[in-house]
Amino acid sequence: MDSIKAILFDTFGTVVDWRTSIVRQLSEFGNRKEIQVDWESFTDAWRAGYHPGMDRVRSGQRPWVNIDIIHRERLNELLAQFSVAALTESEKEDLNKVWYRLNPWPDSVQGIARLKQRYIVSTFSNGSFACLVNMAKYGGLPWDCIFCADIVRHFKPDPETYLGVVEFLGVKPQEVMLAAAHNYDLRHAQIHGIRTAYINRPTEFGPNQTTDLKPECDWDIVVDHISLLADKLGC
Amino acid sequence: MDSIKAILFDTFGTVVDWRTSIVRQLSEFGNRKEIQVDWESFTDAWRAGYHPGMDRVRSGQRPWVNIDIIHRERLNELLAQFSVAALTESEKEDLNKVWYRLNPWPDSVQGIARLKQRYIVSTFSNGSFACLVNMAKYGGLPWDCIFCADIVRHFKPDPETYLGVVEFLGVKPQEVMLAAAHNYDLRHAQIHGIRTAYINRPTEFGPNQTTDLKPECDWDIVVDHISLLADKLGC
Repeated sequence: MDSIKAILFDTFGTVVDWRTSIVRQLSEFGNRKEIQVDWESFTDAWRAGYHPGMDRVRSGQRPWVNIDIIHRERLNELLAQFSVAALTESEKEDLNKVWYRLNPWPDSVQGIARLKQRYIVSTFSNGSFACLVNMAKYGGLPWDCIFCADIVRHFKPDPETYLGVVEFLGVKPQEVMLAAAHNYDLRHAQIHGIRTAYINRPTEFGPNQTTDLKPECDWDIVVDHISLLADKLGC
Repeated sequence: MDSIKAILFDTFGTVVDWRTSIVRQLSEFGNRKEIQVDWESFTDAWRAGYHPGMDRVRSGQRPWVNIDIIHRERLNELLAQFSVAALTESEKEDLNKVWYRLNPWPDSVQGIARLKQRYIVSTFSNGSFACLVNMAKYGGLPWDCIFCADIVRHFKPDPETYLGVVEFLGVKPQEVMLAAAHNYDLRHAQIHGIRTAYINRPTEFGPNQTTDLKPECDWDIVVDHISLLADKLGC
C-alpha cells in the first residue's frame, strides 16, 4: 500500500447521497409549482434510465453523449409519464441540474480532506465534468482534480476509463486505488491492476436497496465510511 | 463581469515561476552529481524548444504527444549538447519532472484561494494533466479542476482548447475569464468570446525578458498580481 499515489472516488452513491438530494429538490420544486407527484418514484425511475442510457453509448448504438444529455432525455420522458406539463425549456434545464447539487454523505468531505494530505484525490465518475465541478463547489468536496467520462468519452466500465485515468495521472495501475460502493466498478478496476476499497453504502438506493449490500470479492480494503478509509491508510 | 462563473489560469509563467524553479533544481542536481554546466543557459535552451515542439504537433507534422514527451526529447538533445553524460534512464526521467515541481509566484496561492470562494478556478495550460496535478500538490495551488492540453489533445492557441474548456464547464464563453501573462493567449481567448485579464510577469524569462512586458491590447483587466485580480473582482 506504500506505493499508492492517488485515491480515485466513484462519486454518485459513494461520495454523494444522490437519491435523498434529488427527492428533496424535486419535492421543493413540486411545492413551488403546486404539482403533486410521487417524487420518490420519479427519482427512482430517473435513475433507472442511467445504465440503459449509457449502455446504448457503450455498445456503439449511438455516438458519444455525456450523462447530462442522457439525464435530460430521460427527464423529458418522465415529465410526460408523470403528467408534469407546461414547463419552460429553462425550467427543464434547471431541473436537470438537480444532479449538480447533491449532498455529500456525512463522512465524505472530512474523509477526502484527510486523504488529500497524503494522496492525489480525484473523482472517477460517469458524471459530466460540469456536473462534478459544480457538485464539488456545492458540497465543499476538496478534489485535486476531476476525472470523468467526458475526458475519455467512454463510460465505466469501459477499459478506456480505468486505463485513461492511469495514463492521465502518469502512474502505474498499482499506484492507484479506487474507492467505490459498487462491486462491478471495483471488479473492473481490479482487472486493470488498480487497488480496491469498498465503501459500504447500503441506503444509496433507499431503504429497500437490494444490490451492493456487501463486498462480493476480497477487496483490498472494506469500510463503512470514507473516514475509516483514511484511518486504514494512516491519514 | 457579474456573469463570470470561472477564472482560467495560464499556468507556466502566469501562476508559477518556472525559470527560477528549474535553474534551482538543475543547479542542485549539478552539485549532487558534480557536473559543471551553465544551468541558466540550459534552462533557456530547454524552454526554447517549447513552442517549436508544440508547433510540430499543431501543424500536423506529427501525431499528438503531450508536453512531457516534448520536454523529454528536448532534454535528450540538451544533455548531449551540454556534454552531460552517463545518466541512467531513471535519472533522466526524474530530471524531466523538474517541470512538475515549480514554485508559485508569491501572490498566486492566496490570490487563487480568494477567487475560488466565488468562482470556479482552473488551470488552462499546455502542461500535461500529471504535471499540473503534481505541481498543484507541490505548490499548494487550490484548483477546483485541471483543464489542459491532454484533455482535448490540442495545444493553445488551437481553437479546440478555448472552445473545449467552455464546453467542459458547460458555460458560455463570456462566463469565463482567462488570466494570463501572455498577450497571444489572451488574443485567442478574446477571439472566442472569453474575457481577459492580463497579469504582468516581466521577469518570467529572466532579467533580460523582451516579450510580454506590457498589455498589447485593451484587455478587460490589467494587473500586476493575482491578488490584485481578486481585488478588482471584489473577492
